[in-house]
Amino acid sequence: MMNIRFEQAATLKPKPDIDTVKFGSTYSDYMFVMDYNVDKGWYDPRIVPFQNISLNPASIVLNYALEIFEGLKAYRTEDGRIQMFRVDENGKRMQNSAARMALPDLPYETFVEAVEALARVEKDWVPSKPNTSLYFRPVMMATNADLSLHGCTDCMFYIFCSPVGSYYPGGLKCNSILVEDEDVRAVRGGTGFAKCGGNYACAQRAANRANAKNYNDVLWLDGVERRYVEEVGGMNIMFKVGSTVMTPALLGSVLPGITRKSIVELLKEDGYTVEEKKIDINDVAKLLEEGKVDEVWGCGTAAVISPVGKLCIHGKDYVINNNEVGPLSRRLYDMLTGIQWGRVSDTHGWVFPID
Amino acid sequence: MMNIRFEQAATLKPKPDIDTVKFGSTYSDYMFVMDYNVDKGWYDPRIVPFQNISLNPASIVLNYALEIFEGLKAYRTEDGRIQMFRVDENGKRMQNSAARMALPDLPYETFVEAVEALARVEKDWVPSKPNTSLYFRPVMMATNADLSLHGCTDCMFYIFCSPVGSYYPGGLKCNSILVEDEDVRAVRGGTGFAKCGGNYACAQRAANRANAKNYNDVLWLDGVERRYVEEVGGMNIMFKVGSTVMTPALLGSVLPGITRKSIVELLKEDGYTVEEKKIDINDVAKLLEEGKVDEVWGCGTAAVISPVGKLCIHGKDYVINNNEVGPLSRRLYDMLTGIQWGRVSDTHGWVFPID
Repeated sequence: MMNIRFEQAATLKPKPDIDTVKFGSTYSDYMFVMDYNVDKGWYDPRIVPFQNISLNPASIVLNYALEIFEGLKAYRTEDGRIQMFRVDENGKRMQNSAARMALPDLPYETFVEAVEALARVEKDWVPSKPNTSLYFRPVMMATNADLSLHGCTDCMFYIFCSPVGSYYPGGLKCNSILVEDEDVRAVRGGTGFAKCGGNYACAQRAANRANAKNYNDVLWLDGVERRYVEEVGGMNIMFKVGSTVMTPALLGSVLPGITRKSIVELLKEDGYTVEEKKIDINDVAKLLEEGKVDEVWGCGTAAVISPVGKLCIHGKDYVINNNEVGPLSRRLYDMLTGIQWGRVSDTHGWVFPID
Repeated sequence: MMNIRFEQAATLKPKPDIDTVKFGSTYSDYMFVMDYNVDKGWYDPRIVPFQNISLNPASIVLNYALEIFEGLKAYRTEDGRIQMFRVDENGKRMQNSAARMALPDLPYETFVEAVEALARVEKDWVPSKPNTSLYFRPVMMATNADLSLHGCTDCMFYIFCSPVGSYYPGGLKCNSILVEDEDVRAVRGGTGFAKCGGNYACAQRAANRANAKNYNDVLWLDGVERRYVEEVGGMNIMFKVGSTVMTPALLGSVLPGITRKSIVELLKEDGYTVEEKKIDINDVAKLLEEGKVDEVWGCGTAAVISPVGKLCIHGKDYVINNNEVGPLSRRLYDMLTGIQWGRVSDTHGWVFPID
């Protein structure tokens, strides 16, 4: 157990209107911070008022982007309790990300402890309207000033919170996705499976281009053959074809989503065949031509399920399920959000109650 | 022309002992800073005391690594003048990097003006010992707090300076390089040609492993076939085979080095055949087996020329030129450093005098 120092804020902020708050623009009163030094290890865990971070202009994170992050949420149940979802999985993924990026190891149990401690302090920030939540953003970054990039000797791990409204205020709805033909997000041997900033920085140009063409997001293809489906950047992707659900296998260039993992379990329990494999985008196009793709959805922490109503492959738009939310997309959304907000009992041990 | 505001430092720092200073660990008195907002454009260019930067924990650069940088040097000539090298090329590369990463455009003329203005203020920091210099590090980063990553609306461009001793205090010497077989730095369609942090963050693990095996650095292979030579990470690479010098072509995954570009020009003027092409590492191994590779060197701003005395390919060590500095490596080093430090007259228009 850590001995977490607490620094009281002089005043507390007013809570925002959860119906109009913009994701990631309002922050709660406190943040968790812990430092690392190669000789001392992790030290001085503390919960302090949310504040700016002061960095040397030569720090490794600003010059060489040596950082990783996570994203998870705290949910308020109808009877007022607060709970989180598979926090241990986020902690384990951050360990894997750190290993890939040569950042220091933070045991996942410590990660869980830090998240839970901050959640307890900020429990009043967890909104109570249905499908709203408090988003937690853990970040680990190399802070030592070292232009020669001889490794991370000093590091900061911090977690801050941001209240988020319902992702679907008008109810679940469809997105349009553009398969990206030019830019590449990741390649085997690279950092695709790690939740590092570089994977997102490289995606910005393609996202802007897709938005300019009125698509909500891009679907990435693999970097080697530019043929195999990878992920949406912020989400994993799944295709329902009859009683089978296909999703790209985790071969190193795709982020191992925790929502993805949970859905695979739920689908198998529901009797679906789940195929985690290499998925050729041309095969997807063929199946779409033949009308065999019933539903497509993205899945991730932010949206939980993001039904895809339109998919543009090599310049051709395919409409999926009449651009309407399909029954399995809806069922998965209801099951997962049900567990997360405590409307459905947790039979998997996924819920982390915050006392 | 910018109207650059100047903020005087209360006290000036002592200059370090240039023989013992560690690269990138000591900073000069001032830094150049300029802000950007999507509505205002670039604004408030200023030269202010070197200081920490204060960032929102939710800023895009800390969460999503949206940043690029450059590196260049100011040199003091024997008669005390100060000059820089191809500053316009750094400015143009930063424009290309910004375009790839969807960061705002900074005209290269403005980049040059900022570098020159800071160099004039910090001219006393340019050391006078042979082969020492003042390193300039320009950085551009997205500073707006936006977890949804809807693009860079606010940005900071800054330049700071760090005095550097001679890269080869005991004279030019050979490095050992390990061809990396597992990790990948970049892939076509990715960000390899951009000088963005993510390219360096992903390289840290392999560098650590190579150092642990007593190699100085890694040589990256392409991400698609893992067969074609790319670069050393901090340097481009060249192979001399008879009167031909081969270097990987710039196909999107390799950084377009300014030292590389300058050497290609010098070699052509010297009558060498320069082949910029895809170079199969197995062909390199074969040429090495046959004793046909006369010299190998890395080239970049830091070392200028870094002769490679040992190259490990797929687990086998090849010794090059008896692990001694070859005549062409030495000649190129002397020519380039001669121009940079003003010992050789600049017939190419590469020198930027700082008045």
